[in-house]
Amino acid sequence: MHIAKLVVVGVGLIGGSCALALRHAGVVGQIVGVGRTQANLDDALRLGVIDRARLLEDDWTAELHDADIVLVAAPVAQYADLFALIAPAIGIATIVTDAGSTKQDVIATACAAFGPRMATFVPAHPIAGTAHSGAAAALPGLYDGHIVIVTPLPETDAVALARVTALWQACGARVATLDAARHDRIYAAVSHLPHLLAFAYVAELAARPDAAQLLAHGGGGFRDFTRIAGGSPEMWRDIALANRGALQAELRAYRAALDELAGALDARDGAALERMFARSRTARQAWETAADRRRDGGEE
Amino acid sequence: MHIAKLVVVGVGLIGGSCALALRHAGVVGQIVGVGRTQANLDDALRLGVIDRARLLEDDWTAELHDADIVLVAAPVAQYADLFALIAPAIGIATIVTDAGSTKQDVIATACAAFGPRMATFVPAHPIAGTAHSGAAAALPGLYDGHIVIVTPLPETDAVALARVTALWQACGARVATLDAARHDRIYAAVSHLPHLLAFAYVAELAARPDAAQLLAHGGGGFRDFTRIAGGSPEMWRDIALANRGALQAELRAYRAALDELAGALDARDGAALERMFARSRTARQAWETAADRRRDGGEE
Repeated sequence: MHIAKLVVVGVGLIGGSCALALRHAGVVGQIVGVGRTQANLDDALRLGVIDRARLLEDDWTAELHDADIVLVAAPVAQYADLFALIAPAIGIATIVTDAGSTKQDVIATACAAFGPRMATFVPAHPIAGTAHSGAAAALPGLYDGHIVIVTPLPETDAVALARVTALWQACGARVATLDAARHDRIYAAVSHLPHLLAFAYVAELAARPDAAQLLAHGGGGFRDFTRIAGGSPEMWRDIALANRGALQAELRAYRAALDELAGALDARDGAALERMFARSRTARQAWETAADRRRDGGEE
Repeated sequence: MHIAKLVVVGVGLIGGSCALALRHAGVVGQIVGVGRTQANLDDALRLGVIDRARLLEDDWTAELHDADIVLVAAPVAQYADLFALIAPAIGIATIVTDAGSTKQDVIATACAAFGPRMATFVPAHPIAGTAHSGAAAALPGLYDGHIVIVTPLPETDAVALARVTALWQACGARVATLDAARHDRIYAAVSHLPHLLAFAYVAELAARPDAAQLLAHGGGGFRDFTRIAGGSPEMWRDIALANRGALQAELRAYRAALDELAGALDARDGAALERMFARSRTARQAWETAADRRRDGGEE
């Protein structure tokens, strides 16, 4: 596994951390970073995340014809424009992959742009993050022990898939394969829905006249429950729209669960409440045990 | 400030940590623990949390007549039975206080039991906890820098209030005063509702046929959002029922917020989604900054 030239489009936390991890692993030659702002690219250069920087507004696509791998790690809403620029400029051996949180919409966008070259586009989703963003937040160990989901199509080239798999393994990640539709439903359930629920909760509290006094009483439970309500509004708007169908289904299921909860409360049905809470506690404790085992290097 | 004899009814995380903190502060003579199970009382004795142990099923009320302070830190659903035993057995100078998460219902229960001695009952709510329970989980520093809310009544004795305030200050806590109804509304909003939302979320996922696969994909956001969904079903059933009125109002407000969110998603209204997320992010970031300042010893 060696990447002579890697182009990272979007040198933020996700793209930057991948670049740093590959550099630490010694598997990459030169890394070119493409981004929207000079300030962030300067951070990336200063911190050794990339070797050279190109602004998106400049003519950066000349960097693509001799690239081994192009990693698109920009916000998903920009993919259509980016793919339209990338597709005609890549070389015969260039593999393109992405790091978007949703996959069906990315695949549709990529198909439209890449056409016959779609076989060497490998849709992927690294499951990692921190509360921070930008190249300055990049960490070489961000993916260590984390999962990267790849969602290949029937026509995806086996060599391209193997190269992208090896790239993420070199970052310390474990790579798992899922059907794109299944991926989107799973992440709607365990990631996108909780983000929307937390956003709605804090937004509702914050709009009240006595918000300041209420929030001053938030403790440790509030802190944990709302941590994801501090995420990027733009990024989560894009994810919500990109995974809209699956999220609508998740919201319906959750609102039905709240109907059940409210009904038990209205009826003073302590037994029903306790059953619901106990089902939750049992599942949450089992989850924590399994997650600890995964983190300790055990099986997935 | 000195407590010659403290009786702790319910030697769990909350009562046990208070006992340990007072002992570390050197402000307490003997500590008697009263509990439901010999195993937990043995833990408390072994770990130096209490000096003597009495089982609830035995005749423990003889310990009360010469107690300076009785701290009731049992589940709130047991308060009616406990107060009925405590009220006739306390001495002329004994102060009774509690550590329950809801206050209007505790006050109503206490009024019924204590009658004319209600002036020396001080309703209180220490805002602290960990994921663990029982005497073995008690920590002398649990309340350090945390808030304890007291919700005195007009008839509450000033000396009793001052003693209970000093008790919690000796544990390292800051004591704040609130009207009981206001307390219950605030904690319904910032604590009880999030717990119910997290319980409903995990319970709903756990009931699906593909729960195991879904949960295997839960990452850091899932971990934080659902941490409080692992709480005690019995305790949260009791809190939900005890603070039912305030929680019903909170659930109504939250479900209206979800209606708004679902409407924006249905209409593909990215601008509305982004506004809601941005309002949340701004409030959550301001909260974190203020919470860090409080933790660093700044003003409340």
